Amino acid sequence: MIFNAHLSEIKSYEPGKPIELIIREYGIKQNDIIKLASNENPQGTSKLVQKVIKQNAKFANLYPDDSMFELKEALSKKYNVTSNNLIIGSGSDQVIEFLIHAKANQNSAILTAKITFSMYEIYAKHVGAKVYKTPSDTHNLDEFLEVFKKHQNEISIIFLCVPNNPLGECLDADEVYKFIEKIDKNTLIVIDGAYNEFAKFKDIKKFIDPKKISEYENVIYLGTFSKLYGLGGMRVGYGVANENIISNLSKLRAPFNITTLSLKAATAVLEDESYIKKTLKNNFKEMKRYEKFAKKHNIKFITSYTNFITFFIKNSSEICDNLLKKGIILRNLKSYELDAIRITIGLRAQNKRVLKELERLL
Amino acid sequence: MIFNAHLSEIKSYEPGKPIELIIREYGIKQNDIIKLASNENPQGTSKLVQKVIKQNAKFANLYPDDSMFELKEALSKKYNVTSNNLIIGSGSDQVIEFLIHAKANQNSAILTAKITFSMYEIYAKHVGAKVYKTPSDTHNLDEFLEVFKKHQNEISIIFLCVPNNPLGECLDADEVYKFIEKIDKNTLIVIDGAYNEFAKFKDIKKFIDPKKISEYENVIYLGTFSKLYGLGGMRVGYGVANENIISNLSKLRAPFNITTLSLKAATAVLEDESYIKKTLKNNFKEMKRYEKFAKKHNIKFITSYTNFITFFIKNSSEICDNLLKKGIILRNLKSYELDAIRITIGLRAQNKRVLKELERLL
Repeated sequence: MIFNAHLSEIKSYEPGKPIELIIREYGIKQNDIIKLASNENPQGTSKLVQKVIKQNAKFANLYPDDSMFELKEALSKKYNVTSNNLIIGSGSDQVIEFLIHAKANQNSAILTAKITFSMYEIYAKHVGAKVYKTPSDTHNLDEFLEVFKKHQNEISIIFLCVPNNPLGECLDADEVYKFIEKIDKNTLIVIDGAYNEFAKFKDIKKFIDPKKISEYENVIYLGTFSKLYGLGGMRVGYGVANENIISNLSKLRAPFNITTLSLKAATAVLEDESYIKKTLKNNFKEMKRYEKFAKKHNIKFITSYTNFITFFIKNSSEICDNLLKKGIILRNLKSYELDAIRITIGLRAQNKRVLKELERLL
Repeated sequence: MIFNAHLSEIKSYEPGKPIELIIREYGIKQNDIIKLASNENPQGTSKLVQKVIKQNAKFANLYPDDSMFELKEALSKKYNVTSNNLIIGSGSDQVIEFLIHAKANQNSAILTAKITFSMYEIYAKHVGAKVYKTPSDTHNLDEFLEVFKKHQNEISIIFLCVPNNPLGECLDADEVYKFIEKIDKNTLIVIDGAYNEFAKFKDIKKFIDPKKISEYENVIYLGTFSKLYGLGGMRVGYGVANENIISNLSKLRAPFNITTLSLKAATAVLEDESYIKKTLKNNFKEMKRYEKFAKKHNIKFITSYTNFITFFIKNSSEICDNLLKKGIILRNLKSYELDAIRITIGLRAQNKRVLKELERLL
C-alpha cells in the first residue's frame, strides 16, 4: 500500500512501555519514583478540579458541548477578548497542528529557533513543509529576521516560544512586539506562551498580552492548561487571535475535540487562585535550589523563566540512565543533540533527593 | 492573511449555544429534556467507569501513558490481535482524519455511500480531496464497484459504514469480504464499525471480524467507545489493521491524543459485561416500540441494526422544531437533504414520551 509521499519523511512512532513500568522492573516501588521529566505541575491536581471531575463522571456518556460555551466564557473574561478570538485544542499541540495545516504546505516553510518545542517541526513534516532554524540554540530575533528575509518567499509561519522549551530563556515582550512589526502581514507569527504565566510571575517584562496579540492581523498566542494549571492529562490548550485567523483554524477543528470532563476541569481550575499562586511560589523558590547547586558544581545553565531548568552536563545520557535506576526520571536532551538534562522543578523533598543523587554522579 | 487554498472550500464552523441552553430558554426544566439526537448510550455511564474516573481524578495533572499500554492490551485480547495492529484516536473520527491525511490529497478522491457519516467528506475537504458518492442513499456494493471502476485512478479510499449512520441499514459481512477481494490492493478500504456491535447482537451475519480485517493488506476496521460503551464524552476510538497501515497512520498521531481518564475509562468499560448486555437488550426491545409505531402510522423506515432508527416524515423540520419546544431533541436529517428524523433508541420512559409527543404532531 502506497501512502502520501511526505509520510516517508516522518519517523515511525514506536511506542515503548511506560517508563514507570521499566523502573518497576528495576524493583523500585511506585512511591519512590520521582518523575520530573514532563513539566507537569508537582502540586498534583487542583482539589477543585478533582471535585468537578468526580461530580461530572456520570456524564462521560454524553458528547461534550462542542460550542465549549463555559470554557470560552471563562477564557474571554480572563483575557478580555471575545469567544470569537478563541480556539480550543486538545493541548496547544493541536492548535499548532491546525496552524500548520491551514497555512503551511509542501511548497512552504516554517521558521523556528534551533532548539525549541519539537512539535513545530513534527507537524511541519506532516504536510511536507520545510523547516528553517536560526543558527543559535536560544531565541535571537536578529537571526530570526535575517533567516526570514533570506527565505521570505517560502516561510509562511514563524514560531517564537516565549519562554522557550526546552532551554528556558525568555524574550522580552517589547522585543517580540517590535519584531512583529518587521514581518509582512501574510506571514503568520505564533507566540507559544505555554510557560508565559511562569515568566510573567518572575518578571512582568516577559508578559505577552493575548489581548494585544489578538489585535494583530497575523499573530496568534498559544496557551495551555498542561503546565501551570496542572491538567497535562486532560489535554486542553488554546489559541487567541483575531477573528479571521480563528475562523479559518476552526474549519480544521473536528467536532468534540475536547472531552466533557476536560472542559469542566479547565473551566474550574481558572477559579482556583490559591492553587495557581502556590504553584508559582513553590516553582521559583525551589528553582533557586537548582541554581545554587549548579553554581556550586560549575554546571552551566540558562536562567529559566519556566517550571524547569536545563543543566548542561557532558555525560548527560549516562547520568540520566543511572538516575533511572534510582527511580528518578528526568528529560535527557540528547534527542536535541545537546549534552543537557531538563529538570522539572518539583516539590522540596523531590528536588532535594534529585540533587542528592545527581551530586553523587557528577 | 491568505490561508491554504482548499480551506476556502470548507464551511466556517459557527458554534451556537448548546441546544440544552436554548431549551431552557423555552422554560423547560433540565430534568424534562430528552436528548435522543447523538446516539449516546441512554443507560448513562457505566458504574464501573464512574468509579475508575473518580479514583483517577487526582492524576489529571499527569500526561497520559502515550504507549496506551493497558488499553491496547485489553483491545488486543478482545480482538485476538497484537498491539501493533491497533491505533487509538480521539474518537474513531480522529482515525478517519489520520487515514485521509495519510492516503488522500488534492489529486485523489474518496468514495462513500450517498447518505453516510458526514466526517468522511469533511476530512476529505481538509486535504482538498474529491468525494465520489454512490447514487443510492443506502450502501449498494454493485454501485460502489461501478463508481470505483470508473474513477479508479483517482479513488484512494473507500468508506463502508457497516451498519450505516444515519440510515441504519447493514451490509452482510460476507458481502463485504467479497467486495474487498474485487478492489485493487493499493486502494484503502475503511470498514467503519462504530455500530457493528449492535448489528452483531441482532444478526451474527452482520459481524465484521476485526481480526480478519487485520489480515488484509489494504483494509482497516474502525471501532468506537462512544456508542455501545457509553463514552461519547471521553473521545476514544480505534483502528484495527495490518502493521504496515498502523505504523503509517501512527506517524500522524500526535503524542498524548487521549486523556489520562479516557484511557482508564475505556479500559474499564470493556470489563463491564452486564452494562454492555443491558444496553444491547434494551436497545432492540425498545426498537420494536418505534417499529410498531411507524407501521401504525404508515411512516417509512429502514430496518436498523444500530442504536437509532430513522423515520422518513415529510415535514420533519417542522416536527423537530415543535418537539424542541417540548424539550425533546432528535436529529433532523435536513442537512443530508432528507425529510427524515433520526431517533436514538432511549430508555422505555423516554421512548414512550417521544412517541406520544410525535403522535400529536403527525
